[in-house]
Parts: sequence; C-alpha cells; structure tokens
Amino acid sequence: MVSTEIGYTTIDKITVRGKDLSKDILGKLDFVETMMLTILNRVPDEREKRMVNLILVTACDHGLTPSAISARLTYLGAPEAMQAAVAAGLLGAGSVFLGTTQNAAEMLIEAARELRDDAGEDELVACARETVRRAKAAKRPIYGVGHPIHIHGDPRVATLAQASRDNGYFGKHWRLMFAIERVLRDEHGKNLPLNAVGAIGAMVAEMSLDPLLARGFMLVGRAAGLIAHLVEERQNPVAQQIWDLVLTQDERNEVPARSRAR
Amino acid sequence: MVSTEIGYTTIDKITVRGKDLSKDILGKLDFVETMMLTILNRVPDEREKRMVNLILVTACDHGLTPSAISARLTYLGAPEAMQAAVAAGLLGAGSVFLGTTQNAAEMLIEAARELRDDAGEDELVACARETVRRAKAAKRPIYGVGHPIHIHGDPRVATLAQASRDNGYFGKHWRLMFAIERVLRDEHGKNLPLNAVGAIGAMVAEMSLDPLLARGFMLVGRAAGLIAHLVEERQNPVAQQIWDLVLTQDERNEVPARSRAR
Amino acid sequence: MVSTEIGYTTIDKITVRGKDLSKDILGKLDFVETMMLTILNRVPDEREKRMVNLILVTACDHGLTPSAISARLTYLGAPEAMQAAVAAGLLGAGSVFLGTTQNAAEMLIEAARELRDDAGEDELVACARETVRRAKAAKRPIYGVGHPIHIHGDPRVATLAQASRDNGYFGKHWRLMFAIERVLRDEHGKNLPLNAVGAIGAMVAEMSLDPLLARGFMLVGRAAGLIAHLVEERQNPVAQQIWDLVLTQDERNEVPARSRAR
Amino acid sequence: MVSTEIGYTTIDKITVRGKDLSKDILGKLDFVETMMLTILNRVPDEREKRMVNLILVTACDHGLTPSAISARLTYLGAPEAMQAAVAAGLLGAGSVFLGTTQNAAEMLIEAARELRDDAGEDELVACARETVRRAKAAKRPIYGVGHPIHIHGDPRVATLAQASRDNGYFGKHWRLMFAIERVLRDEHGKNLPLNAVGAIGAMVAEMSLDPLLARGFMLVGRAAGLIAHLVEERQNPVAQQIWDLVLTQDERNEVPARSRAR
Repeated sequence: MVSTEIGYTTIDKITVRGKDLSKDILGKLDFVETMMLTILNRVPDEREKRMVNLILVTACDHGLTPSAISARLTYLGAPEAMQAAVAAGLLGAGSVFLGTTQNAAEMLIEAARELRDDAGEDELVACARETVRRAKAAKRPIYGVGHPIHIHGDPRVATLAQASRDNGYFGKHWRLMFAIERVLRDEHGKNLPLNAVGAIGAMVAEMSLDPLLARGFMLVGRAAGLIAHLVEERQNPVAQQIWDLVLTQDERNEVPARSRAR
Repeated sequence: MVSTEIGYTTIDKITVRGKDLSKDILGKLDFVETMMLTILNRVPDEREKRMVNLILVTACDHGLTPSAISARLTYLGAPEAMQAAVAAGLLGAGSVFLGTTQNAAEMLIEAARELRDDAGEDELVACARETVRRAKAAKRPIYGVGHPIHIHGDPRVATLAQASRDNGYFGKHWRLMFAIERVLRDEHGKNLPLNAVGAIGAMVAEMSLDPLLARGFMLVGRAAGLIAHLVEERQNPVAQQIWDLVLTQDERNEVPARSRAR
Repeated sequence: MVSTEIGYTTIDKITVRGKDLSKDILGKLDFVETMMLTILNRVPDEREKRMVNLILVTACDHGLTPSAISARLTYLGAPEAMQAAVAAGLLGAGSVFLGTTQNAAEMLIEAARELRDDAGEDELVACARETVRRAKAAKRPIYGVGHPIHIHGDPRVATLAQASRDNGYFGKHWRLMFAIERVLRDEHGKNLPLNAVGAIGAMVAEMSLDPLLARGFMLVGRAAGLIAHLVEERQNPVAQQIWDLVLTQDERNEVPARSRAR
Repeated sequence: MVSTEIGYTTIDKITVRGKDLSKDILGKLDFVETMMLTILNRVPDEREKRMVNLILVTACDHGLTPSAISARLTYLGAPEAMQAAVAAGLLGAGSVFLGTTQNAAEMLIEAARELRDDAGEDELVACARETVRRAKAAKRPIYGVGHPIHIHGDPRVATLAQASRDNGYFGKHWRLMFAIERVLRDEHGKNLPLNAVGAIGAMVAEMSLDPLLARGFMLVGRAAGLIAHLVEERQNPVAQQIWDLVLTQDERNEVPARSRAR
C-alpha cells in the first residue's frame, strides 16, 4: 500500500505521528522537537534536542560559501521564485561539501561496528589504522579531516566534542574519529585536523541515527543560512557585482561601466 | 564591495553577526535563535522565537503532499544525492502552495499600510472590501483563504491565532485577514475560510519581517519534513509503487507484475 | 483519467505520439524534430525546424554567466551528481534572465491580438505606445529591450530577424517589438535596443506556439551550454578560484595561500 | 586565471569557441552542431552528429516517468517558474535512472582499456567475466543491463546498435557490453538484456567522449521531453489528480469530492 507513517489528513484534522497537529504539537513542541518527532516517531529527550540544535547551528552558514553565492546568483535571475534560489544553494551539498557528513557517519558506523564502547587506546588506533588503510585501498577519501581555511584546526570541533561529552554522546565513534586524526599525523605525516564534518558524522553515529540524517540536518540548517543571505541580497544586492568580478578576470570580456555600477 | 554582513572566516575563527560561532553561539543559542540572529542581526526575544517556531512547525509537513512525492520520486533515481531530492521537494513552493505565504504577507502589508492599529470594525471591513476589489480588478487571487481538503476551516488557524494573541502579535494584519474572510462570505457568497497560508502571512506581517521570510520559513520547515520522508523512503520505499500506480491509470501502459511487486 | 497523450510503454514497444520510437523515430527524426513532435503532435516542417534551431543556439551559452557560475560552484561540492549542477544552472531562468522570453512572448501576443497582419506604421506605433503605457501603469517591465553589456544593440538580433524573414515568420509580433524600441527612443528618450529576449519572444509568437515554450527552449538550449561548462570544469577547474576571488573581496576573510593555490 | 575557453563577450560581439556567434554560428550550425562545438572545440562531422542525435532522442521521454511526474507536481505549485519544474524533473537523473549512462560509460572505458579493437570472442568473454566479477566484489551494480518493463529486451537497443554500426562506432565497447549480457545469462543464469543505458554508455565510449557527457546528453534530451509534458500540463492538467490518487491509497486520508473533481 502506498502510504506514510508520518501523517495523514482528514477534513477536520491533521495527524502527525499519531498526534493532532493543531492541539498536541503546535505551540506544545518547538521546531526541533517536531522535526525529530516526525523522523523518529517519538519526541526527543532534552539531550537529543541539544545535540540536534548543535548540528543545525553548525550547518547554518557563515559568509559567502559556494552555496550562498549560487543562491544569490539564482535570485538575481529569478527574484519571484525564492525557492529556486534556496534549492540551487542546497544542490552542492554532495561528496565534497556538507553532504560529506553522511559519508563520515557511514565510515564511522561501518568501521566501529565491532569496536566495544570501552575499547582501549590500542584497539582504537588499530581500528583507525584499518579505516585509513581501507579508504586508501578503495581510493576513497578519508572523511572528516582537514579544512582549506582552518589549517590549524577547525574551531568548532572542541565545542562540539565538549557538548557531546556533556550530553552523554561521546563514545566510540568520536574516539575513533580522533584516533584517525592521530594515525594520519603520526603514521602518515599528514596534518589533517578533525573538522566539523567529522564532528557531525560522529555525533549522528553516537545518536544511532540513520546516516542519511547527517546530510539531512545540513540541508535544514543551511536552508536557514540561505534565507538570511537572500533577505540581505534583496536589501543590499551583491550578485551582479560577483558576476562582473568573475567576467573581468578574463580581459577579453568587456563589462561596461554602466553595468559595473549597478 | 562584494561582502556580506552575515559573517566571515579567519584561519582560527568563524564570526557570525559579530559573535564567535564556537564560543558565543554553539551551545548558547539554539537553531531558531541562530537563524533569527543571522537574519535580523540580533537575538530574537522569547515571543519572537515562539512565533517563528509556530511557523516552522506548521510548514513541516504531513502526509504525501506534492513536495513529498517529488522528493521520493527523485530519491528513487538518485539515492546517492539526497540534496537533489530535498531540492526537488522544495521547488514547488511557489504561487499556489507554500510560497503563497509571501504573497499573503505582501497583500496584508500593502493593504494595511494606512490602517491604524486600533481601527474599528467599519474601517477594517472597508479595507478588506478594497483588498478584494483590487485583487479582482488585477485578476490576482486573494491569498490566504480556502483549502482543497479543509473545506469547513483549516484546523491550524485557531491555534495560530490564539498563540499570536498570547505573544502580542495579533494586530491589524490578522484582523484584516479575518475581515477578508467575512467580506468574501457576506458580500460575495463565498465560503473560503482563512487558511494556514493566511495565518502565516499575517504572523510575518505582524512581526514586521520581510515578506520574503514568509516563503523562507516555509522552505526551512518543509526541508525538515522532507528529510523525514526520505529516511522513511530509504527504510520502507513507496516511490516505485507510486510510479506504477500512475502508469496503470492508462491502460495502454503495460507494467509487468515483477515490477509492480518491487 | 491520469494519462498523457505524449506516449506510453508496453513490454515490447515505446510509443511516442502514435509512432514506434525504435522504428519510426530513432534514426529517422533528429533531436529537434523529435522534440517538436513530442510537443506539437506532428513533425515540424523545415522552416519551423530552422526557427527552433535558431532559438536553441541563441540560448546555448557563452562565457561565465550566472547560470554557468552556479553550475560550476554546485559541481565543486557534488561532482558525483552532475544533474544537480545542471539544475542549479537552470534555476535562475526567471523574470530577469532567460525566462523573460516567456514574458516577452506573452506581452507581444496579448498586445498584438487585435492587430491585423498588414497593419500600417501608424497602427503599429499606436499599439506599441499602448503596450508601453500599460506596462508603466502596472509597474511591469517592458520585456525584450536593453542589455547590460550590448549597450549599442544586441548583435544577435539582426541575424534572428533576417532568418525569421527568410523563413516566413516576420509578422506583426516582430514589427511590434521593433516599434516598441522606436517608441521608447523617440517618445521616452530611452535608448534600449531590442535584445535577444525580445527576438525570441517575437519568434515564438510568430510561430503561434505556447509562450511557455519560449522559456522552455531557453532551458533546453542552456542545458547544452551547461554540460560544456561542466566538462571543462572537470578538466580544468575554476570554481574554487571563483570562490576564493569572492572571499578575498572582503579583507576580513582569511584565505590561506594553500587554498588559493589549489 | 578565472576564465573559460568556451566563449567571451564584448560590447559588439559574442565569441563562442573562436567563432562570431551572430555571423558564423546562428543559422549556419544547428543546435546539435553548436552544442558539440561548444563541448569539443570543433564542429562535429556528420557521423558524430547522427550519433548525438540518436542519444538525445533516446533520452527525450515517453509517458509518465518519475521525472515527468515530479516536474508536473512542481508545476502545480509554481506555474510561474517553469524552470523549477524542469529542474525538479532532472534531479532524479542519478545512479538508478538516466545518470547511469555515465556509470555504464565509465565501466566500459575502464574495463576495455587493455582490450584490442580486434579482440576475439574469447578475450571479450574473459574481459566481461572480469567486469562482472569486479562489480560483485565491490558490491557495485553492473550497469546497462535489465529493465523493469522491457523484460524481454529493450526495443531501442537493436536500432542503436545498427545505427552505431552504420556510422562506424560499433567497436570494443559495444561488443563488451553484449558480452556482459551473455556472461550474465550463460554463467550466472540471469536474464538481463542490454538496455538503452548500456547502449548509450557504449556509444559515448566508442566516440571517445568524456563519460560525464553520457549523463549530460540525458539531461539535455530529457529537458526537451519535460517541456512537452509541462505544455500538456498547462493545457490539460493531471498533477492534481495524481496527488489525489496517491492520497486515496491510504484510507485514513479524506479527499473531498470537490477536490477530486478539480
């Protein structure tokens, strides 16, 4: 039968996961609780809620990332369809940016499957070594390490690790992620500090969530950042200037002053 | 200069609206507060935060809407790119579904510009009458009324109206929206009860936010609903059955049992 | 009944507009003929085919337009999902770029409805004057004139106009479009030469096609240009440099040399 | 330097691959020739052009596929933004539908790298066997075989194979693809006939094109099919009925007759 367990609608009522949306959810549960109810079929507890908030806040956005630039350039052409600009900004959340949180979560869940929660350092390092070896053999990247800008370490990681500890979600996946960082440094001579992608992959793994959600949370959080960029673009546009800036890199293009001034 | 006031990144720090993301935001502000900080350049107060939560929860999703169906059909073809499925699900948020919250907010802000906050019933009805007249003259729809399923009234509206009252956001825009409903009924013989789109348009207008955000909040909320649908689709797929169901409506198509059984 | 007249599929045959795809279409009709068969329910004649080719070639692409930049930035994040990059590149085809061909066609069809095919100059100018007046009254843009770069005139217009003449499609819509250009210059002092958007709007109107196709043809043609850009991006990437270029405009951002060198 | 070899624009001229768009391309080259010029930096010969036309025609569309359904459901919500509907329809072109042509081309190019053009049957079968073995070992699908509806064989394959022969593009990649079909049948007992995806993968490989183009051509061809569906949807809508059809599968949903009748 084609149906969903998420919800259904009658003439007088909307039911979401068995609850009356208007009476039991609206005003009773906040957005993050409702999102998790919809996904998990139960209201999350306080610790889960704090973890999901941390992940969404990390994903939100800061500055002119490729997703913000694509969204603004799309808005330049189609201001009447903001949904298209948000969609364009989300579409790059793949195996290189944002979407890699899913790959990191999958890598950690797979690698740590046999690891005991109280595994000692030696076991952890052996598991990390094997994870690195397998990725290299399959010519797959090792997810969750290194950053093009934060070359001395991703400033978000310490906060996310401490918050995970405080909420009881700092277990074997987080520890494996840190062990991978160490193995890369000590045994491969590579300084690739654990990044926010690795942190979020570990957090989703620790919470026993479907790794697909690691990418999903990025999309929800980034959507929020993109609407902030688009409201700013409407009030103080820069997309045309970005286009002109790119065009003028190739001196064969002519960009009239009139256009540049817009 | 090409730049954004939202944030910037240095080697050791990410700054969002003047705050250090790792020290002042992560773990200190939740997702909705961070989203509003990014948009408004200030932390929202409790009442604003409750209002935004109500809007996001309303947008979340329930059942197999066109956006959920499109997302699932897209996931069927490209399960490795969940971002594409979420984007496909958002792209229909236009002038007929979801995106109409922006149209409703614009309509109310424009129509109520000259209306005093303490306008009496007569003034309100006159303003509503003029709004209906202008929409008809311009062959534009009247936004925020009527629903294909909730033909006796949208069950979310009473909750959203009461919550707006409780939070101090039930002013001239909400009252105008209700007056439009009455004018349509009493003077045009049309039973088109105020719907969730009208409620959200009124809420955004009452909060003095950019109407673009009325559509933007829908996109963030719906993204959350879509990731719930996609996690369910991964675990318990129905997209292939939906496709077969559509194909078999036209008896010229042949759908082998093998396919139907998948 | 849910069905389409475009085609259906049986176990042994695919039927498109009543023809057997494998026997009567593949290798017998080329792409443009098949596209038009699918749309029109008949094979186009030679003149129609030449007109559609002209439109698609015009849409194809040239240089780093906003659509090419968005597509490349999306590919940077998700190289495994080229469809997402092409979609991101198409999403800006709205009321400002590309999609305006639809608006121009609608404007011309609406305005020329009462115009006879052999209307004299005076009638044409009167109709153009009325079109400009109505657009200004409704605060709508006048579509099909002006260009940010080709400020002395769009170099494609003369070729498209001559080809339309050669193929028997230079009628009242083309003439009205040129009259609008003249009215803006002579009566409003505005030098806004007819552009490719106006030319394509006129061509679609002359061919009696649904104006939606004016936008549709742009999407098909631009998709071709985008795949050329993405193949180049894979072989000789510039998206990371575009991002760095944007970031370095705001001196608060730090972009390490390592990143810039990539 | 940020630039593209595809083209550039001056105030009076658009240059595409060194040619003047208005004088040397428009009206001189048709759409497929222009697309290939843009990609290859040379005008294709007649045989290449016929091959590309065959691929685009195959991709075009037939009936209510997931891409056509998603496009129509998106159009239902946002008829003012046809580009969003086309984008939604393209976004499912991934590793299961349409995009698999790229996977098939990559598989064939990789597997046949060491194969001589005049390899005998034994060599071919050995190579096919090894290709199947490697896919199974890596838990990857074997691309280009099997079809959910055309269970006795894809009717397009014979036409595409003969046309490839006629145009001098039936070499080791096509032969390997057929050998894989045979190995699956004879040695694994699996009746999975070569399908259109395998044929297009072979064609792109034979033409020595970047495998990315195998997916790219699908997107261009399918965009054409989608605009046909959207023009039909505008004139004779079925999207609302599709939605109602899905909703009524779950008897907990109530769909008023009024809605169903729309």
